Amino acid sequence: MEKLTIVKVGGKIVEEDDTLQQLLMDFVKIAGAKILVHGGGRLATKLSEQLGIESRMIDGRRITDEDTLRIVTMVYAGLVNKKIVAGLQALGGDAIGLTGADMNIMRSGKRPVTTIDYGFAGDVKEVNTNALALLLQNGYIPVLSPLTHDKKGLLLNTNADTIAAETAKALAQLFDITLIYCFEKNGVLMDEKDDNSVIPLLNREIYEKYKKSGIIQGGMIPKLDNSFQAVDAGVKQVIIAKASAIAGGMGTVVAN
Amino acid sequence: MEKLTIVKVGGKIVEEDDTLQQLLMDFVKIAGAKILVHGGGRLATKLSEQLGIESRMIDGRRITDEDTLRIVTMVYAGLVNKKIVAGLQALGGDAIGLTGADMNIMRSGKRPVTTIDYGFAGDVKEVNTNALALLLQNGYIPVLSPLTHDKKGLLLNTNADTIAAETAKALAQLFDITLIYCFEKNGVLMDEKDDNSVIPLLNREIYEKYKKSGIIQGGMIPKLDNSFQAVDAGVKQVIIAKASAIAGGMGTVVAN
Repeated sequence: MEKLTIVKVGGKIVEEDDTLQQLLMDFVKIAGAKILVHGGGRLATKLSEQLGIESRMIDGRRITDEDTLRIVTMVYAGLVNKKIVAGLQALGGDAIGLTGADMNIMRSGKRPVTTIDYGFAGDVKEVNTNALALLLQNGYIPVLSPLTHDKKGLLLNTNADTIAAETAKALAQLFDITLIYCFEKNGVLMDEKDDNSVIPLLNREIYEKYKKSGIIQGGMIPKLDNSFQAVDAGVKQVIIAKASAIAGGMGTVVAN
Repeated sequence: MEKLTIVKVGGKIVEEDDTLQQLLMDFVKIAGAKILVHGGGRLATKLSEQLGIESRMIDGRRITDEDTLRIVTMVYAGLVNKKIVAGLQALGGDAIGLTGADMNIMRSGKRPVTTIDYGFAGDVKEVNTNALALLLQNGYIPVLSPLTHDKKGLLLNTNADTIAAETAKALAQLFDITLIYCFEKNGVLMDEKDDNSVIPLLNREIYEKYKKSGIIQGGMIPKLDNSFQAVDAGVKQVIIAKASAIAGGMGTVVAN
């Protein structure tokens, strides 16, 4: 099977020109088919502030009211996505920026209101593997922004980690996939304060143990849940690491 | 040759929900391959105002400084483009939103500074017909926002009428093309105050005569120059009309 590398980057990396440039240079060197999934939450928060719109977060997840949906559409699909696409094109990578609405790549449903109303937040229902395969097989590099649609005309804000995992899972039948989650640290850490305390390999048993003891907590939990689901669905490996690890370096490998 | 209809819409039409919805319903009914090119200038001006950034225009063309480039990238490639794409998807049209950077669809050069410095404004250099043909032949509907890139990492603001004309000209060797420019009036008018005074057919001779006598002036001149260039390059016909004319109605046909 053909190799496919899916890289998810978020936060500061894509929002600062020098770190973004380094990332794109490392990314474009990856051999074979590749997909980049990006975030952009801090820039969305910044634009909200400038427009006097309050950003509300619960457990690190944005509450997306109508104004916020407009903002994330502008920031994710416009500002961040096109900066990445233009940057990759300059480096010879034939990138194409997509939301879930484009080519109907990713259909979602508005998250049901329970105790929390997340507003215009989408839970992924279906990934269009044919459309993604058409692009990949023709040498294009899909650059996915964290927006999906309900195919009834509504765009929905969707967690970028989830987009990366769902894309990997859906394409696992067609490609030999490595999914890399880039974040600020060297990997999943034993000691949050020591960036050298990377856990090299994490299986479900160790994960459950570390979760119980509180070594793994907070934002790492949804990221690792996504990772294990991806591995269960046939993704070859998931790596959690600093963006520089794309070019070789430390990181945590998630496996069953 | 296969038929291809390229529709350019701008201004109010795409910026108000009810007129946009009507447009999309008419557009999606067009038989065969189609491309939609959109503007969004008023929304860009509105966002600039909200952010306290001055919008400067000369002869109806926006002066694009760095802040303005960020704004038009957010509004054109994000807000407007994705609203149209999601709207078409809801109507069963398999739309894909693109800037010139995506798939390197349209490469431009930063407009040289003469007496006026337009800033980050792009003059089109090259249209990637292979990429557009791949999408069209696979049944996708490209939705083009008025942004191009220089393939050196820079996005450039580019007039939507020009994008439509350049796309039509480049694809004229592969498709039998009708280019429709939609605007607020019924067509090119003999009397600006009488929306029923549509000039049904305009050739170069009549155009030059009407331009001389002042019947045709202002923003119509670049639009008609674009139209005649398209016809010269092999585009079958150019129609200038109200958006409702897509579904049948009045308009001015531009021919040689």
